[in-house]
Amino acid sequence: MTRSVQLRIPAGFVGGSTSAGLKPSGARDLSVILSERPCAAAGLFTRNLVCGANIPLCREHLGGRVRGIVVNAGQANVCTGDAGAEVAARTARKAAELAGCRETEILVGSTGVIGVLPDVGKIEAGLEAVFGDGLSRAGLAGVTRSILTTDLVPKTASRRVRIGGRSTTVFGMAKGSGMIHPNMGTMLAYILTDAAVSKRSLNAALRRAADRSFHCMTVDGDTSTSDMVVALANGAAGGDMVDGASEDFEAFEAALTAVCESLARQVAADGEGATRLVTVRVRGAKTEADARMAAMAVARSSLVKSAIFGRDPNWGRIACALGYSGARFDPARLSIRLAGRGVFSGGQPSRHNREEIARRLADKREVTIEADLGAGKAHAVAWTCDLTYDYVRINAEYTT
Amino acid sequence: MTRSVQLRIPAGFVGGSTSAGLKPSGARDLSVILSERPCAAAGLFTRNLVCGANIPLCREHLGGRVRGIVVNAGQANVCTGDAGAEVAARTARKAAELAGCRETEILVGSTGVIGVLPDVGKIEAGLEAVFGDGLSRAGLAGVTRSILTTDLVPKTASRRVRIGGRSTTVFGMAKGSGMIHPNMGTMLAYILTDAAVSKRSLNAALRRAADRSFHCMTVDGDTSTSDMVVALANGAAGGDMVDGASEDFEAFEAALTAVCESLARQVAADGEGATRLVTVRVRGAKTEADARMAAMAVARSSLVKSAIFGRDPNWGRIACALGYSGARFDPARLSIRLAGRGVFSGGQPSRHNREEIARRLADKREVTIEADLGAGKAHAVAWTCDLTYDYVRINAEYTT
Repeated sequence: MTRSVQLRIPAGFVGGSTSAGLKPSGARDLSVILSERPCAAAGLFTRNLVCGANIPLCREHLGGRVRGIVVNAGQANVCTGDAGAEVAARTARKAAELAGCRETEILVGSTGVIGVLPDVGKIEAGLEAVFGDGLSRAGLAGVTRSILTTDLVPKTASRRVRIGGRSTTVFGMAKGSGMIHPNMGTMLAYILTDAAVSKRSLNAALRRAADRSFHCMTVDGDTSTSDMVVALANGAAGGDMVDGASEDFEAFEAALTAVCESLARQVAADGEGATRLVTVRVRGAKTEADARMAAMAVARSSLVKSAIFGRDPNWGRIACALGYSGARFDPARLSIRLAGRGVFSGGQPSRHNREEIARRLADKREVTIEADLGAGKAHAVAWTCDLTYDYVRINAEYTT
Repeated sequence: MTRSVQLRIPAGFVGGSTSAGLKPSGARDLSVILSERPCAAAGLFTRNLVCGANIPLCREHLGGRVRGIVVNAGQANVCTGDAGAEVAARTARKAAELAGCRETEILVGSTGVIGVLPDVGKIEAGLEAVFGDGLSRAGLAGVTRSILTTDLVPKTASRRVRIGGRSTTVFGMAKGSGMIHPNMGTMLAYILTDAAVSKRSLNAALRRAADRSFHCMTVDGDTSTSDMVVALANGAAGGDMVDGASEDFEAFEAALTAVCESLARQVAADGEGATRLVTVRVRGAKTEADARMAAMAVARSSLVKSAIFGRDPNWGRIACALGYSGARFDPARLSIRLAGRGVFSGGQPSRHNREEIARRLADKREVTIEADLGAGKAHAVAWTCDLTYDYVRINAEYTT
């Protein structure tokens, strides 16, 4: 509970969580995030056609201002048909009743097994328990743990930024460890700020920030059915409303992007079974889209990820993934560096010490792969983790 | 060597292989396939920008008639710069000299580690040994083993087909176990026929056959740098030349497609670390392209593949992969069957017995996943294998 001090939570946000009995383990599985005042809200959701029953509800509720978010972990409420839509609606209704706001001011997040209906009776009883215990800033710190499933550690990030003449905070939390290959939405991530930001500008800034953070990350190449990133700005720090036209907006967007990027790196580092965080930096691309395709192809390659797990400097697999990525370049101008050492340059293998690189791969928890496509000036970064026995174990045993 | 009897090798083709010292294990690693007369030839090659030094040579030599193919296993001769191109050229030249044909009538296949130059001196000495020992039909049967790397078993298939008034044979061999996600080309596959087929028609038929076989298969989502499928038709069965306009051509193309499909299934079944062959059948799609995208997305999903390894009826992951595949459909009309049992129908989970499905997954070496998108009449099939501890082990330890 002392985490609430370390976590820089923006003014006017509180939270709480409980064990509603949704997770067989008995761990905390029902969370509430609440703003004391209505927020300008922006959200991005999975592009997966098969999506959670909560996703259409959130899209609809984002049409207006938002007061809070309820998250249940354990069952994702996906492929649950009409009954699933009813669970999402009743969750929002019950939380609104307890929070004293309109049902349309509540968003719902769900994560866990697909195809199993969450028990709405347990959710309603759980919400009564959470509100009965009282929501608080310390309770919000606890929410960063209770939204998790196979994650080993909570992921949070924050930045202070001075805008509209006030010191404001941008705070974010995320969950996600497997089924991670965000496509327009992402795993669950909630960004809270006490800055006063217009809805339109918040939305635009969130989209750009996600493109440079959550969309540059993959664990296993599977785009989840339940991805969502939501940003809430309650303006509790005071000060004038800022928007894209304001002088301070660039600073706000930079803080938002930094928070998203930090969360994305944390999700990749906590990928199911991971022992290494892998950062892929591509430069010299014709366009930013090419750079991102190239970086993501390397990050998604099971062969590259297995080699990193084996501390094996098998850089040919990096060249292979760049080659099929769809990015346009001439292999004769390609250069590759692995763990800070050049291995391939101008279409020819560079002289390098395999044993030294293997040692560097073994010694560090973070591995960097760098490629210069020699085709232009654009660059991009992608984050992933290694592919390990534990990834297979976790996903071979998930529901049984 | 008795395999040559079981293998229905077309008339006029011989082969041989030796241990040239390219594989550290000392296993056979240099192979020759030779036709006694010049062949109409067609080939498909990897679309990977980073490709083997032998690929441009093959593209060029396919401009004319072809007599033979040399394959070296151990080093893929990729990312080897100008020296790699020289190795490929000297390989073709030496084989042509020994076979008494033109250098441009020889194709070269290479497979193995990327970024390491094969020793051309060993290849030249090996070719002298192969030709010195004499090429034969039994020797060609041996080639089906000596082109392998991490494969556990050779892959061959054949069909008899009556065309041009003669009984002819279509025979194919393939290697491939990892870095399998063919894109326009595929892993190494050589199709030999004694039918008299025109070059243009052979080429068209091979492209269509590959679209329904090698392009419907994935082990790990990584498109190799060395993929190639080559078909050689030497006409040794006699009879008139047939082409796309001939009455018999449909029968020939069906035989060719059946051989390619069988090889693709065998490659998937022998995927690195595999314990299960997984067949994904998608029907009810708007277009064949949609059906193929949907089937390949399921086949590529690490989560689906891990669940199959765990004998875990976690069908929600199948729905998830269909949803992000890019195929157009309404989830409310989606149905899914796993191991022959309905699990999801019309947007709702079907009543099913999880334990029975888990038992069926445990009992059979082949697993079928069926999806009906409810959006049209098109269908497609994809083949893959499960994702296991051994896949990770093999690929964590490959070069070191």
